[in-house]
Amino acid sequence: MATALVLEEKGRLSLRDFPVAAELGPDDVRVAIHTVGICGSDVHYYTHGRIGQFVVNEPMILGHEAAGTVIETGSAVSHLKVGDRVCMEPGIPDPVSRASKMGMYNVDPSVRFWATPPIHGCLTPEVVHPAAFTYKLPDTVTFAEGAMVEPFAIGMQSALRARIQPGDIGVVTGAGPIGMMVALAALAGGCAKVYVADLAQPKLDIIGAYDGIETINITQQPVADAMRDATDGWGADVVFECSGAAPAVLDAPAMARPGGAIVLVGMPVDPVPMDVVGLQVKELRVETVFRYANIYDRAIALMGSGKVDLKPLISATLPFEKSVAAFDRAVEARPTDVKIQIEMPGR
Amino acid sequence: MATALVLEEKGRLSLRDFPVAAELGPDDVRVAIHTVGICGSDVHYYTHGRIGQFVVNEPMILGHEAAGTVIETGSAVSHLKVGDRVCMEPGIPDPVSRASKMGMYNVDPSVRFWATPPIHGCLTPEVVHPAAFTYKLPDTVTFAEGAMVEPFAIGMQSALRARIQPGDIGVVTGAGPIGMMVALAALAGGCAKVYVADLAQPKLDIIGAYDGIETINITQQPVADAMRDATDGWGADVVFECSGAAPAVLDAPAMARPGGAIVLVGMPVDPVPMDVVGLQVKELRVETVFRYANIYDRAIALMGSGKVDLKPLISATLPFEKSVAAFDRAVEARPTDVKIQIEMPGR
Amino acid sequence: MATALVLEEKGRLSLRDFPVAAELGPDDVRVAIHTVGICGSDVHYYTHGRIGQFVVNEPMILGHEAAGTVIETGSAVSHLKVGDRVCMEPGIPDPVSRASKMGMYNVDPSVRFWATPPIHGCLTPEVVHPAAFTYKLPDTVTFAEGAMVEPFAIGMQSALRARIQPGDIGVVTGAGPIGMMVALAALAGGCAKVYVADLAQPKLDIIGAYDGIETINITQQPVADAMRDATDGWGADVVFECSGAAPAVLDAPAMARPGGAIVLVGMPVDPVPMDVVGLQVKELRVETVFRYANIYDRAIALMGSGKVDLKPLISATLPFEKSVAAFDRAVEARPTDVKIQIEMPGR
Amino acid sequence: MATALVLEEKGRLSLRDFPVAAELGPDDVRVAIHTVGICGSDVHYYTHGRIGQFVVNEPMILGHEAAGTVIETGSAVSHLKVGDRVCMEPGIPDPVSRASKMGMYNVDPSVRFWATPPIHGCLTPEVVHPAAFTYKLPDTVTFAEGAMVEPFAIGMQSALRARIQPGDIGVVTGAGPIGMMVALAALAGGCAKVYVADLAQPKLDIIGAYDGIETINITQQPVADAMRDATDGWGADVVFECSGAAPAVLDAPAMARPGGAIVLVGMPVDPVPMDVVGLQVKELRVETVFRYANIYDRAIALMGSGKVDLKPLISATLPFEKSVAAFDRAVEARPTDVKIQIEMPGR
Repeated sequence: MATALVLEEKGRLSLRDFPVAAELGPDDVRVAIHTVGICGSDVHYYTHGRIGQFVVNEPMILGHEAAGTVIETGSAVSHLKVGDRVCMEPGIPDPVSRASKMGMYNVDPSVRFWATPPIHGCLTPEVVHPAAFTYKLPDTVTFAEGAMVEPFAIGMQSALRARIQPGDIGVVTGAGPIGMMVALAALAGGCAKVYVADLAQPKLDIIGAYDGIETINITQQPVADAMRDATDGWGADVVFECSGAAPAVLDAPAMARPGGAIVLVGMPVDPVPMDVVGLQVKELRVETVFRYANIYDRAIALMGSGKVDLKPLISATLPFEKSVAAFDRAVEARPTDVKIQIEMPGR
Repeated sequence: MATALVLEEKGRLSLRDFPVAAELGPDDVRVAIHTVGICGSDVHYYTHGRIGQFVVNEPMILGHEAAGTVIETGSAVSHLKVGDRVCMEPGIPDPVSRASKMGMYNVDPSVRFWATPPIHGCLTPEVVHPAAFTYKLPDTVTFAEGAMVEPFAIGMQSALRARIQPGDIGVVTGAGPIGMMVALAALAGGCAKVYVADLAQPKLDIIGAYDGIETINITQQPVADAMRDATDGWGADVVFECSGAAPAVLDAPAMARPGGAIVLVGMPVDPVPMDVVGLQVKELRVETVFRYANIYDRAIALMGSGKVDLKPLISATLPFEKSVAAFDRAVEARPTDVKIQIEMPGR
Repeated sequence: MATALVLEEKGRLSLRDFPVAAELGPDDVRVAIHTVGICGSDVHYYTHGRIGQFVVNEPMILGHEAAGTVIETGSAVSHLKVGDRVCMEPGIPDPVSRASKMGMYNVDPSVRFWATPPIHGCLTPEVVHPAAFTYKLPDTVTFAEGAMVEPFAIGMQSALRARIQPGDIGVVTGAGPIGMMVALAALAGGCAKVYVADLAQPKLDIIGAYDGIETINITQQPVADAMRDATDGWGADVVFECSGAAPAVLDAPAMARPGGAIVLVGMPVDPVPMDVVGLQVKELRVETVFRYANIYDRAIALMGSGKVDLKPLISATLPFEKSVAAFDRAVEARPTDVKIQIEMPGR
Repeated sequence: MATALVLEEKGRLSLRDFPVAAELGPDDVRVAIHTVGICGSDVHYYTHGRIGQFVVNEPMILGHEAAGTVIETGSAVSHLKVGDRVCMEPGIPDPVSRASKMGMYNVDPSVRFWATPPIHGCLTPEVVHPAAFTYKLPDTVTFAEGAMVEPFAIGMQSALRARIQPGDIGVVTGAGPIGMMVALAALAGGCAKVYVADLAQPKLDIIGAYDGIETINITQQPVADAMRDATDGWGADVVFECSGAAPAVLDAPAMARPGGAIVLVGMPVDPVPMDVVGLQVKELRVETVFRYANIYDRAIALMGSGKVDLKPLISATLPFEKSVAAFDRAVEARPTDVKIQIEMPGR
């Protein structure tokens, strides 16, 4: 039993005692949670009770973006020790599935992912986690930043799939939290410049404050036109579609240069029309992204070396006892809020 | 002036004298045409007078799949000599355009392509062509096969874009001439087995006669089901969509394995719905194909070594004087016809 | 206790009772061995008692190229059942090591590999093996061929690393068993033609009997000259160095085309001189190969579809009770012997 | 006739009137040179009279790192106009050679490269150059920086060949001008951190002043040890060998992680021993670099966006009339000198 933020059912959260697994296997570590970020998917389960085929049928602990401190190690664990400051990958695959053996453990259908029914999340004081999916934070990375590694990892996976070449020009459609992560990952990952497009000016102001990021308010100019202007008519090397909006998907080929790439990050609920001939006449490559694999090390390296600073994207930090309030603020989706975090007591 | 097969306007062909360019530059060769294949695009200009933005506003010579013999060489030509049996790439790019410098001369917007308005084709006894886009045929490749290099090159470009890994399982949706070329290129290009799906059994019978090709009649089983059965539920490594049909595009993610690839070869006239989430949960890569670049050498190598035999796909050969009849038969689109060719007199 | 072929110490083999591990874990299968091939490394341990840092300090069962039949399955095994004809990957990695998580379990330093001290091999009637590294054979693949999957997998890994493009011209230096496997994998994997070079004509005769393979006897012409002649001076797309001989490594850049690849398969004992400037002026890429990962499925697929026929490379099959004689023949290294296999009694 | 810095023969420079080509073709621009950097190869021709097979048999104008202003445009030039500030690629390939058509015009054997016998360089007030190899500088890039694009392009080509993944850890062996360029390109190109190793502390101090660069003085610790310490024993993702020194080449595999890459940038005069087995047990990939192709745009983009600042590497600027003195200082090779530039009068 431990206190936990429990999604009892669609629309109803409670902070209450809950039975939690506590057994530590030889390859596991026990982590005292310090900070947990609230993700759009947490909010979506709260407000809708489901995401696609994943339905909340029983009370479930929320939270999957976490950092904390190792307080116990299994007998076979060698690369971590008590006291290490860490963050955790929330998805645990079958390590010898066909996909995992190929290095794509993110697309292993048997992945067990925190706060994805029926798997519980981490908004509780302690968790037991496989050491192989627990990553040490360098001294230069705070717990708050450590809890940002998870969403940043999606940005990093997107940058990786893009196969950015040094000096590429990127454009991101959609300036939500993931769009921002993608833009920063693409910039740190080799782009000379990244353009971010949205219709919400407050979001553009936040991400546009970074060196190397330029913004496009699509209420003023179509993205394709803006990219043509920015590149002498050549187009962006990489288009990161992060809005999930059908018009952005349809227009993506017009934003790209011949031989460029489109990375589909945003998840439209239903199939959306794609301009196949538009893709073909430029022989574009389309990549897609699902979570991440083998990314945490490199995400942490970029944060630790100072090339990526995510602190400006942490909009508010609330204590664990105000978790429900934190979620209700997240539901508001204020355009000036990027990431809201919850901090455990006594850390 | 030379005899030529001229598309006078939509629906009207004539074999008549026509003014042709005859000047030989220092980097050019003059080629006596031997055999010309009829392509779907030739037929489409004949029946519709246009393809997309390319409109036949003035009489135009048709034909772009050609083989012949060098009869004169420009002063600077060194790799070809009179008497060489050759085939020609029908598209001539600006060699120092930004795309061409990158090796993607196929997506150079300034490409001049035979029988694409306002550029004349090659259904005339002689053509002048840049030596750099003229390729010598080995003794083991006939003129008829040489005139098949152009459509096979599209199959090869598709196989190349797929980045086939040795032993991959491929599936081709759509058993038209291009689908067949793709299947054979994928098989020669490293696939262990290629499945070809269509609803026309006669087409499946033709392509299914090749070792290593299996067929799926989609009137009997959906392709995705067939691929699941064929791969223990894992899916195809590469899906080549060659039908341009919306349902095939929509269902393509269901045919592929996690981490697999979809190559869009067929050109749907309008945007078609794509299952973005279906792509994402398997983290699929989508490649697109537009003609070919740097492919002729390798296409000829595969034909010359005997790994690819395209002769069974040549359904009929008519003499030049029956060119109009040859086109009219091509318009019929008999399911047992794959490629119809025209042979020049006296060759 | 079971009968096993035991390397007692350098130079001394015995077929005798030996204690073997027999416990079946939930993720394991028990396999009745049918056929085991003798590998050069088995022979090397026999004749030298060591390979590099791996030293035979205690009696060790030899053999790692095996096929057999599943006779018992662990409780959690779902993709295999009793009676399945299978072959096994001889190396078992730590599935959550950093390398394994990335899909490169072959370079995980903690791999436990059959018949590599102190791990026992499979020349004994039964083995227990993780189901995840046990692969079902199709009906079209015999046990003898199934025991060839292991060496062929090295050829396949080489072909994969090469990133062959359809229609490439390959050249293999060294016509030992591995060179032959590489040549066949490269050919099936997309090459239009593969040249194999050696100084032993009997070996060239064996591999040259395959369609698509041509041979170069280096006592008559240097490989680089032969490749220049064969490619109009352009060079091979991919050079597979399989001899481990210093002159072949040094001369490899001269065999390749600009922008081509060299795959180093052969393992020279000591560092060998490499022509760095020769590599650079053609901007060649050099790949290296260490065993294989995620290859068995695709190797089996190519054998099962009939694209690759390894039966001509099985030179002799001896019964288990003549194992020592089989090894002694392998030590002879007759130029007409490629692979010698041992068959278990009663299978 | 124009004033030019002429290498009369080995060891003898003169600034004198010299006949220069002045005819402007339709695809050319005439550029008034502003700044020219002195490259190691210029110095080498001065001191040795040759580089490998390239021998100075007749007086030759030196210089190939140049920026200037367009003062005349050919009739077919559209993307540049008089007054544009530009820099130039010094190598002009045959645009339809087999290598150029593939996008690798840097390895086209027929490239004509400034200041490589018998082609004259650009240390003269005006040059005529193909517009396709002339690149506009953004307002944020000075002429001095524009003349740095050429050496930086080699760094960029190295970063590109490496296929850096976002967050990689890189190490550069050799802190000469090219090593520094490579380090900065790798950092901007996606590395989280780049280590630079050398034995000359003054060089390390210069490059170590950049954020994200750390230095290793190899008189104090072997590079492989330093990288092991820096990466928990895993190794660098990419090793850029820029010294051309045999021990660095030999030890490179020990610096890299399993599955990592080694990029050979430095050019050892003779073949050097390479640890093939060391490469194989980690399955390393080795890439090589020869000049650059399709790099100027992206190099300029990174400089223009402020991600790369090369100004600290410009150690001294001398006027054209002191060109000989500038070369004599370059010959000194002071450890605190990175790049010495020459400025034209009246610019």
